Amino acid sequence: MDPNAINMQPHSLEITMEVHQVVPPPHKSTLEKLKTRLKETLFPDDPLRQFKGQTWKQKLILGAQYIFPILQWGPNYSLKLFKSDFVAGLTIASLAIPQGISYAKLASLPPILGLYSSFVPPLVYAVLGSSRDLAVGPVSIASLILGSMLRQEVSPTKDPILFLQLAFSSTFFAGLFQASLGFLRLGFFIDFLSKATLIGFMGGAAIIVSLQQLKSLLGITHFTKQMGLVPVLSSVFHNANEWSWQTVLMGFCFLVVLLLARYASMKRPNLFWVSAGAPLVSVIISTLLVFGFKAQNHGISVIGKLQEGLNPPSWNMLHFHGSHLGLVIKTGFVTGIISLTEGIAVGRTFAALKNYQVDGNKEMMAIGLMNMVGSSTSCYVTTGAFSRSAVNHNAGAKTAVSNIIMSIAVMVTLLFLMPLFQYTPNVILGAIIVTAVVGLIDVQAAIQVWKVDKFDFIVMLCAFFGVIFISVQHGLAIAVGISIFKILLQVTRPKTMILGCIPGTYIYRNIHHYKEAVRIPGFLILSIEAPINFANVTYLNERILRLIEDYEAEEDVKKHSKLSYVILEMSAISAIDTSGVVFVKDLRKAMEKKGVKLVLVNPLGEVMEKLQRSDEAGDLMKPDSLYLSVGEAVASLSSERKGQSSSHF
Amino acid sequence: MDPNAINMQPHSLEITMEVHQVVPPPHKSTLEKLKTRLKETLFPDDPLRQFKGQTWKQKLILGAQYIFPILQWGPNYSLKLFKSDFVAGLTIASLAIPQGISYAKLASLPPILGLYSSFVPPLVYAVLGSSRDLAVGPVSIASLILGSMLRQEVSPTKDPILFLQLAFSSTFFAGLFQASLGFLRLGFFIDFLSKATLIGFMGGAAIIVSLQQLKSLLGITHFTKQMGLVPVLSSVFHNANEWSWQTVLMGFCFLVVLLLARYASMKRPNLFWVSAGAPLVSVIISTLLVFGFKAQNHGISVIGKLQEGLNPPSWNMLHFHGSHLGLVIKTGFVTGIISLTEGIAVGRTFAALKNYQVDGNKEMMAIGLMNMVGSSTSCYVTTGAFSRSAVNHNAGAKTAVSNIIMSIAVMVTLLFLMPLFQYTPNVILGAIIVTAVVGLIDVQAAIQVWKVDKFDFIVMLCAFFGVIFISVQHGLAIAVGISIFKILLQVTRPKTMILGCIPGTYIYRNIHHYKEAVRIPGFLILSIEAPINFANVTYLNERILRLIEDYEAEEDVKKHSKLSYVILEMSAISAIDTSGVVFVKDLRKAMEKKGVKLVLVNPLGEVMEKLQRSDEAGDLMKPDSLYLSVGEAVASLSSERKGQSSSHF
Repeated sequence: MDPNAINMQPHSLEITMEVHQVVPPPHKSTLEKLKTRLKETLFPDDPLRQFKGQTWKQKLILGAQYIFPILQWGPNYSLKLFKSDFVAGLTIASLAIPQGISYAKLASLPPILGLYSSFVPPLVYAVLGSSRDLAVGPVSIASLILGSMLRQEVSPTKDPILFLQLAFSSTFFAGLFQASLGFLRLGFFIDFLSKATLIGFMGGAAIIVSLQQLKSLLGITHFTKQMGLVPVLSSVFHNANEWSWQTVLMGFCFLVVLLLARYASMKRPNLFWVSAGAPLVSVIISTLLVFGFKAQNHGISVIGKLQEGLNPPSWNMLHFHGSHLGLVIKTGFVTGIISLTEGIAVGRTFAALKNYQVDGNKEMMAIGLMNMVGSSTSCYVTTGAFSRSAVNHNAGAKTAVSNIIMSIAVMVTLLFLMPLFQYTPNVILGAIIVTAVVGLIDVQAAIQVWKVDKFDFIVMLCAFFGVIFISVQHGLAIAVGISIFKILLQVTRPKTMILGCIPGTYIYRNIHHYKEAVRIPGFLILSIEAPINFANVTYLNERILRLIEDYEAEEDVKKHSKLSYVILEMSAISAIDTSGVVFVKDLRKAMEKKGVKLVLVNPLGEVMEKLQRSDEAGDLMKPDSLYLSVGEAVASLSSERKGQSSSHF
Repeated sequence: MDPNAINMQPHSLEITMEVHQVVPPPHKSTLEKLKTRLKETLFPDDPLRQFKGQTWKQKLILGAQYIFPILQWGPNYSLKLFKSDFVAGLTIASLAIPQGISYAKLASLPPILGLYSSFVPPLVYAVLGSSRDLAVGPVSIASLILGSMLRQEVSPTKDPILFLQLAFSSTFFAGLFQASLGFLRLGFFIDFLSKATLIGFMGGAAIIVSLQQLKSLLGITHFTKQMGLVPVLSSVFHNANEWSWQTVLMGFCFLVVLLLARYASMKRPNLFWVSAGAPLVSVIISTLLVFGFKAQNHGISVIGKLQEGLNPPSWNMLHFHGSHLGLVIKTGFVTGIISLTEGIAVGRTFAALKNYQVDGNKEMMAIGLMNMVGSSTSCYVTTGAFSRSAVNHNAGAKTAVSNIIMSIAVMVTLLFLMPLFQYTPNVILGAIIVTAVVGLIDVQAAIQVWKVDKFDFIVMLCAFFGVIFISVQHGLAIAVGISIFKILLQVTRPKTMILGCIPGTYIYRNIHHYKEAVRIPGFLILSIEAPINFANVTYLNERILRLIEDYEAEEDVKKHSKLSYVILEMSAISAIDTSGVVFVKDLRKAMEKKGVKLVLVNPLGEVMEKLQRSDEAGDLMKPDSLYLSVGEAVASLSSERKGQSSSHF
């Protein structure tokens, strides 16, 4: 047989074709392979690349700049940049102060903690963080989860000191966890929260948060401690006698104003200052109203006295032992993951807008350290908030200096302006929270998910309804579980396609997709679209045997010719394990018993090596059962077949 | 541009080449797709195929045969087959009787339950099962797990009735669970126990089981209730004063005889009757010895009186409520999965040897129903045992009638021979168990795993040491967890390969594998080896951006030409989700900013549909950025490029 002059099946082009040898990949030791694998798994971005070929001094500078990005942009900082950052910093401060107080209340914590948390963490982030647009502070969903998880074991009203201790300890663990993920380069943990999961989760959480605000918006004093839709609504209507019309009126008016301001800013991005300033303005006006009318005596509850002064130290309040340790670690884990996801996503979004890179693992370390420092300075979990960062971006922030400006503004507030908040009504905080979270309900994105992927839509619905009807943590866990199950199902039930030749080419494609693709008589060409491993070998075995039976059962094919070759196109089999190797060997034996030859095409490096290593007899790797492409295999084998039947070719 | 006359890059063959249009797959409604998907997922073997095109009467017959395989082979049963089955049945009965008693003791159950469990379940299986070689009865590992899990909450000595009730209830749930898996066609659950996991698990369990036998082999009376290596060994040496030399001597002698018999049978398969008969012979001889020397008064413990008579009903002992329900369901789940895995694996192994098919889902239903019936007739968890089935096969069993013969032999024993066991020493049961489980330690297979796949070897070690040092259930859970983590890691960190052209062909292959493959100047050709989904989009984004940067940084390439095209070979991307679609669109935008064009090659049916549906602007699916093969894409685009630079081609 001269492999250089093979006539392919009748309907193909008649050209000369060479059969290329399939070679095993260049030899590498187990250690080298492990090194490459680890690098690909943990360092896809190759962070040490920039250090290559530099002097020691430069390496030191680059290292310092790597750890403290402020050293990178700091030296080039100009007055022009400062002007932009100053405006942006004041703008987000006007948003951060009322939101901070509101979110602390959402977490069942003293309102002043929201201000403390808007003072220290932004300073830490400004030094360590690499995003230029992230506005740091407490966020709604992490606050909600922190409060609801801790309330399961400790009452914030009966045992406020213990509750505070647990909150700080949870914040510490959240930070530790975040920093470890970054340090160990395990950032892919947060990748398991898919877009669809997040859309559903955020929507559900927004509704839960809004429902909680009915307490302050309606002025109810006896409110349920549960979070679900059913208990909250039943609590609202069972306590209808507690509704205070003054509170409802005030809340309704300010809510409408705030929502209108939000709407105006959404329609015209250059009106960003309307929605940014509205909360502070509302707080001031409502406080003046309460003060003027002495409304605190007419059923409108107010925040009350807040202590002046900066963050007191709180490291002595961190608890690393005791009966609540499990809860604290769990709360830290959940709030850590959630706030990290938000922070990283926000950072990436704005980096993509301005076309710069944010290093995910570095950001995780920055956010984690920020929370660890925060936990010992009376701050609770903070991260980059989406709405505030958007305002920051629109207000023209150029660098992290805007965070420093905001922090200073909060400091001034803490030092001198605290008495002003004494008469701020709680209802206004509820209105601010509702306005902030309403943007998390993204119907457009949900419709898009429905259009693209029905399964993702189901995952989204599970997250949404899970959060609303069961609990925030369980809804999230269910959605993540279903997402992972989907991945496992894809691996367990890989697609097996029958390929046919596109006439006039050597290209072989799925015959159910490309209707013009024709089968080659005597050949069954299969492509498996997944790694072969323990989880799918049984399925693949059944599937392939059925395909062969189907082939043999087809009457017209029978007339044409008996099945002689099963070609396994292995280009898409990225990995194989022990079970997979046994599967291929068993398949070959089973085929042989039927008088059919199994031919492998293009096994990839690792797959080829493993097959070779387990193939003592050398049956699988013989040159006439191993080809580089389906075209070459069919060409070579059909000439062989002809040669056998006519003995001269 | 005339696509019929393109000159490919200089080193390639000069032939005419047509560019083929990439078409979306034929349209299917969501319902049709769901139907196909469900069929592929749940019915890969298409069990209803044989019913197609049959008359109603034939369908009924086929249906009955499907449910009761005995109707299939029963009518053709002959005297010749019966002779073979009779010999095999008696052979396995001689093994099943001593093993049954021993395994029941292993599960802390009354010894007679082992005989009950060797009577009813084999009859049920003979009617429902489709394997011809499976010998049904209690097995060592399921017995061990059942006993150890139930002992966590209830003591078999202090509260024997409750313990028995829980054992029957667990058996019921195991059967229910097994039958449901088969009925709901979720058999892939057992696929998650990979070969490597099972090797490690079995080896560890064999050692744990053998260690437990030190109690009877050494004649210790105060033995630990824990299972781990450490507590058992410390219990053995702390109670060294309880060792009885008579017991040790007797145990040692019989153990050597049994192991020698096993060794002889392994060396010469036609001596199978030596190892099959040895346990019963040992029981008879040791019983006679005890009876003759009145050894029960000299420190040798004996089984004691066993009640004559067939299985009493036990459905009134099944508990579906109460405080132990959780434990019972968990025990049922674990023993159900483990015994199912053994039964199915044994069935498949012998089916492959004799070249017939075993339907996994049908087998699950058969084993499940067998256990459900068993649970109400005083039987505990049973399945097809490997060692006994091997003896059955070697003894010449042709059909499930050998199970019926064994069952009758056990019945005769139960009715008339029970007093004979009164003086059977416990030490002999220990020796029988050790001989039976020693075969589960498969060093050869472990070496093979090490040779083929290092990661699988680690999984194996985890299962092995987890079972030995922690507990049987936890060792198993850890190994399964690691296996699943490996699958997830493969999906989260897919391989991204750079392709080059194999000179003289249109074939593009990994340049790190095929050293002769050359890069095409101006092109970066990437192949992604996994479905694109939420879990890997971040990684892929970083990975691809780094590859592009690397490309641009390579000096020599720079001199040659600027990067103009990134070609994404999508043949191996079997699926895509919402996040994946966004990733491709974002990648295209990011490329455009760099002045690089993203070209897609051969997106598969589902992937193409989703991209198209989300691509309102039609940017991704333009003919000049979508090709059927890399060869065509490079040929067409490089001519375009030349045309642009020289303006006449």
